[in-house]
Amino acid sequence: MVEYRRTHDCGELRKSAIGTAVTLSGWVHRRRDHGGLIFVDLRDRYGLTQLVFDPEKYPVCHTAAEKLRSEWVISIKGEVIPRSEGMANPNLSTGDIEIQVAELNILSKSLTPPFSICDESIDVNEELRLRYRYLDIRRGDVAEKLIVRHKAMQAARRYLDHHRFIEISTPILGKSTPEGARDYLVPSRIHPGNFYALPQSPQLFKQLLMISGMDRYYQIAQCFRDEDLRADRQPEFTQIDLEMSFGTPEDLLPLMEGMIKEIFQECMGLQLSTPFRRLAYDVCMEKYGCDRPDTRFSMELSTLTDIAERSDFTVFKEQISGGSIVKGLCVKGGASLSRREIDQYTSFVGEFGVKGLAWMKHQEQGLTSSIVKFFNEELQKELIERMQMEEGDLIFMIADVKGRTNQALDHLRRRLAKDLNLIKPDQYEFLWVIDFPLFSWSEEEGRLVSEHHPFTSPHIEDIPLFDEDPLKVRSSGYDLVLNGYELGGGSQRIHDSDLQQKIFQLLDLKQEEMEEKFGFFLESLKYGTPPHLGIAFGLDRITMLLTHTDSIRDVIAFPKTQRASDLMMACPSTVADEQLNDLHLNIKRLDFS
Amino acid sequence: MVEYRRTHDCGELRKSAIGTAVTLSGWVHRRRDHGGLIFVDLRDRYGLTQLVFDPEKYPVCHTAAEKLRSEWVISIKGEVIPRSEGMANPNLSTGDIEIQVAELNILSKSLTPPFSICDESIDVNEELRLRYRYLDIRRGDVAEKLIVRHKAMQAARRYLDHHRFIEISTPILGKSTPEGARDYLVPSRIHPGNFYALPQSPQLFKQLLMISGMDRYYQIAQCFRDEDLRADRQPEFTQIDLEMSFGTPEDLLPLMEGMIKEIFQECMGLQLSTPFRRLAYDVCMEKYGCDRPDTRFSMELSTLTDIAERSDFTVFKEQISGGSIVKGLCVKGGASLSRREIDQYTSFVGEFGVKGLAWMKHQEQGLTSSIVKFFNEELQKELIERMQMEEGDLIFMIADVKGRTNQALDHLRRRLAKDLNLIKPDQYEFLWVIDFPLFSWSEEEGRLVSEHHPFTSPHIEDIPLFDEDPLKVRSSGYDLVLNGYELGGGSQRIHDSDLQQKIFQLLDLKQEEMEEKFGFFLESLKYGTPPHLGIAFGLDRITMLLTHTDSIRDVIAFPKTQRASDLMMACPSTVADEQLNDLHLNIKRLDFS
Repeated sequence: MVEYRRTHDCGELRKSAIGTAVTLSGWVHRRRDHGGLIFVDLRDRYGLTQLVFDPEKYPVCHTAAEKLRSEWVISIKGEVIPRSEGMANPNLSTGDIEIQVAELNILSKSLTPPFSICDESIDVNEELRLRYRYLDIRRGDVAEKLIVRHKAMQAARRYLDHHRFIEISTPILGKSTPEGARDYLVPSRIHPGNFYALPQSPQLFKQLLMISGMDRYYQIAQCFRDEDLRADRQPEFTQIDLEMSFGTPEDLLPLMEGMIKEIFQECMGLQLSTPFRRLAYDVCMEKYGCDRPDTRFSMELSTLTDIAERSDFTVFKEQISGGSIVKGLCVKGGASLSRREIDQYTSFVGEFGVKGLAWMKHQEQGLTSSIVKFFNEELQKELIERMQMEEGDLIFMIADVKGRTNQALDHLRRRLAKDLNLIKPDQYEFLWVIDFPLFSWSEEEGRLVSEHHPFTSPHIEDIPLFDEDPLKVRSSGYDLVLNGYELGGGSQRIHDSDLQQKIFQLLDLKQEEMEEKFGFFLESLKYGTPPHLGIAFGLDRITMLLTHTDSIRDVIAFPKTQRASDLMMACPSTVADEQLNDLHLNIKRLDFS
Repeated sequence: MVEYRRTHDCGELRKSAIGTAVTLSGWVHRRRDHGGLIFVDLRDRYGLTQLVFDPEKYPVCHTAAEKLRSEWVISIKGEVIPRSEGMANPNLSTGDIEIQVAELNILSKSLTPPFSICDESIDVNEELRLRYRYLDIRRGDVAEKLIVRHKAMQAARRYLDHHRFIEISTPILGKSTPEGARDYLVPSRIHPGNFYALPQSPQLFKQLLMISGMDRYYQIAQCFRDEDLRADRQPEFTQIDLEMSFGTPEDLLPLMEGMIKEIFQECMGLQLSTPFRRLAYDVCMEKYGCDRPDTRFSMELSTLTDIAERSDFTVFKEQISGGSIVKGLCVKGGASLSRREIDQYTSFVGEFGVKGLAWMKHQEQGLTSSIVKFFNEELQKELIERMQMEEGDLIFMIADVKGRTNQALDHLRRRLAKDLNLIKPDQYEFLWVIDFPLFSWSEEEGRLVSEHHPFTSPHIEDIPLFDEDPLKVRSSGYDLVLNGYELGGGSQRIHDSDLQQKIFQLLDLKQEEMEEKFGFFLESLKYGTPPHLGIAFGLDRITMLLTHTDSIRDVIAFPKTQRASDLMMACPSTVADEQLNDLHLNIKRLDFS
C-alpha cells in the first residue's frame, strides 16, 4: 500500500523545518513548468506548499510530475529546502520554504473540473456550484465559512455547558400543529393515514423539559418549514435553542450577551462591549419604522403629521384626513442630491406601495422645494427643529397609512446609508427590542394572531387589558437585532394553564382544535410548571454576519435552491411504487386543465 | 411580580452558609407535618433542601405551608440554619442544614400526578411513564441519564475539535437510496409526486466532504430507519459520525480509542487502558460464535467436528455428513449442574433452532454422560485436551449448520456467564473486530450483499479474488465492541470510481439503478478523491452502557414506542385534507377484505 500518511499538513512548514524529511498529501492546486524545474502548489484544508521537481536530482520523479494535472490527489516524500533568493512568498504561511520532491505517488486522478478550483476570483454560476458542491467547497470560500460556523457552535456549546445548560436532542419526528408556516409531513407505515411532522422549532419540547425539571436546556436544533422560499430562507435551518427555569429576562439577556460575546471572540477575535442597548418596540417603530433596525447609523425617523395638517399642502392634508400619517427623515448633507437622484429614491419607495416622496432642502436661502410654499414660516421653523436640519441637509417625507409609511422609510433609510457610505465595515451594533405587542390583528384571517407565538407571556400588569383592548397588551418577548438583522428572539413563557387557555381563546382557536393540537401541553402545565423563559438564535444568520455574506447558501454545506431542490443529489425525486404502497399513499393525478 | 430568582440551587447549601439569607425555588418533593413544625423537601435538578415552617416564628407562612401538596412549584425566602442535634442527613449533600422559611410564594399548583414522583422505587408501567414523560423525567432516573448523555456529547466534541475535526451538519431532507433498511419519506409540495428521504446515515455526505477537501469532519447526527422495531431500536437514533482523509486504520483506531477514553473519563471517572484488543472476524467467529463477543469472561468455543466424525455417535456423524459442524464450550465447574439445569439450557438453545445440546461432565471417574460411550478413550483424551477440561468441568456441544451452531453457542455462552456470575460489575472490555468479509451471500435476494455498506474498501491484496471467490475478499472495515455490544463501526472507503463501480456490479445493481441512485456520487469520485476512512458510533448505545440500562428509551428524552408512536403527543396523527392536497397525495382506502 502506498504510504500516504502525512508528517505535516500543507500550511505548516516554516524555515525552522529546513532539512527535514517530510511526507505531504493533497491536491495539485497549480503546476508550473519552468523549463527544467516543475513547480506544484500542493493544497489541503490547511494551506499551500510549493513542491519542486528537479530533473537532475530526481529524474524519474520529474518525469512523473510532467503528467500531473489540476486537482489530482498526490502524496510526496521529500526534503524541506529554503526557497531561492528573492523567491519567498510573504502572502503564504509556507512561503519561505519548498519541498525538494524525491518520491511521487498519484493517489487519484481528476477529470477537468467544470469550473476553476484555484482561481476563486472567477465568478461561477451558482447552479453549477450547487450541482458540484464538493468542488465548490474545495475552492475554499465556503470551506472557510463552514469552519467559522463550527467555531461558533463550539463557542456556544462551551459557554452554555459552563452555565449548566444540558444539551438534549428533541424528536425530529413530531406532531403536526400547523400554526404559522406549513409543516413538512412524514407518512407513517405502521399507522395508515397518519403522519409525523418535522419540527418548525422545538418549542413545546423545550417547555416540557422545563416542566420536567431539567432547569436549563439547550440544543443546536435542525428546524423545518415548508414555505415558498425567499432568498434568505432554506427548508431546513438551524437554531441555537435554549430554555431556563426560575429566571426572568433580567437573567437571560445578560447571559445571552455573554454567549454572543464568546462567539464573536472565538470567530472574529472581536471584543464586544455589553450590555447591549434595549429599545421598546413602540420607540423602535417610531424611530426606525421597523422592529429590526440597523443602528450602525442614526438618521432616525420623525412623525410630522401635526405639522403637516397645519400646512396648506392638500396632498398631505387629504392623506391625513383619510387616516394616514406623515413621517420623515433627515439626510445630512443631502441638499447636494441631484433631481435625478431624488427621482430614483422616489421610485425606490414606490416599490413599497407609497404614492410619493416629498422632500425639502435646507439651503443658504432657507428651505427649498416645490412644496415649501405650502408651509408658512413658523411651520418651516418647526420642521427644521423637529428634523434637526442644518444648512446642506435634506428631508424626505412620506404620507401614507402607518404600516406602509414605516416600511418605505425603513427601506429608504437603509438604502441611503448604503449610498452615502454611512456604515463602517466591521461595525457591530447589537440591540434588544422588547415590549412587543402580544397580538396583532390579521386582516386575512379576521382574528388576533400571536406576534411571537402563543406561549409568550404577556406583561403581567397588562392582563387586565385582555378583553377591552388586547392589541395594547405588551408581551414579555425580546428580539436580538444586529446591524438590521434579527439574530434571535424569545420570551418569558406562560406557566399557568388557565392563562394559556385564555390566550388560545383570544386567538380564536376552537376548543376541539385546541385539545387536538395542544391538549397534552395544556395538561402538562397543570402538574407543577416553573416560571421559565427561553430564546432561539438563527445559527445560519449569525454565521452569515460573522462571514460577511448575504447568501444563506454560503454557510450551509449542502444547501437547497429556492425551489427546495438539492441539485447535487437530484432530490426530491420519485420513489418506487413499493415504497408508496408501504405508506398507503397514492399520488394525485395532476390536473393539467 | 413574585421575586422567584434563586440565590442558590437545592443541592448547594452547606454548613458554611449558616446565617445566610437565601431564596430557593423548586418543587415540593415531600411535606411532613410534625405537630407544630412543617418540613418540606424542596427539589430541583441539583438536589433537595429541607425547609422548616415554624408556626411560632412565621405564623402566616406556616399557615400557607399547610396547603402545600406534592409537586407544587414554590419559591421561598429564609435563613440557612443548622439542623437540630442528631437530625443531620449524611445521605444528602445539604443534609447538615435546613432553611427557616420567612416568606413563601406559590408559583404553580399541581394536580395529583398519575404516579409518584418522589418514590423512584415504585415500578411504573412504561406506557404511563411515556404518556407523562415530563413527570417521568422529573423522577430523576431518566434525567440523570440525559445528563450523562450530554457529558458524553461534550467530551466527544471537545476531543474531536482538539483533533481538528470540523462539525458540519448534513441535510435531513435527502434522497431516497434504499439499500438495506426502509427510508422515511417526506413528500414535496413544490415538486408533485417527488419525495425527500430522511437519512439512514450521513454516509455519502461525509464522503463528499472528504472529496471537498474538508480533511476531517464530524457530526452528532440524527439518523432514521423505518423498520419494525426491536426492543433496542428507535425510528430516530443518534450517531457520533466522523470521517478523515489521508489516513489508515492505523491512524483512526488509536484516535478513536482516545475519544472513547475521554468519554469514559468524563462520564464515569474511569481510566480505560489502551490500545484495545483487535481480533480478526474469522478468529472472532471461531472463538465466540459472533462478531460482537462479550470478552469480559473467557469460555471460548472450539470446533470439534474432526473429533466427532471419528466417534461412533451417529447423531453427530449424520449431521456432519449433511454439512453441519460440531462445536462446543467448556463450563468451568459445570459438572455440578443438575439434570434440570441442563434441560433448561437445552430448551434455551432450542430457541435458536438447533436440534439438541450434548454434554459431558468431567468427574472423578472421567467423562460421564449418556453419549460418552460413543467416544473411545483416545477421542475422550482429545476432547479433554481441546476443551481444556479439568475435573469438575462440563462441556456443551452442538451439531448443526455453522451459522445456527455459532448463534446458539454465542447465546448459551452469554447466558451461562450471567447464570454463573462470571461478569464483574463495572468491567469494560473493548475489542476491535477487523478483517470482515466484504460480502455475504443473501439467500433471500439471491445475490451478494455488502457486509457493511457498498463504499467499504476491500483489502487491496484481496482484489484479485473478486471474480473467482468474492466471499473470501476481506474488507477494511472495523467494529468497536464493548461487553458484547457493537458500539460503532466504520471502514476505509473506496476512493477510486472504477473500483466503486466494480463493487456495485458485484452487488448486481443494474447500471440504470446505479446511475439513478449513486450516479452523482460515482461522478464525484472522478474529480480527485483522497484516500479516506471513517466511523460512526451509536450514541444511544454508548449512553446505555454508561448508565447501565438495557432500554434505549431510558436514554432518549422523548422516545417512541415499539410501534413508533409518541404517546405523550399522540403522534403520528391524522392531518387536515388541505395539507394532503398541498402534497398532491391521497390516502389509500384500506382494504379490510
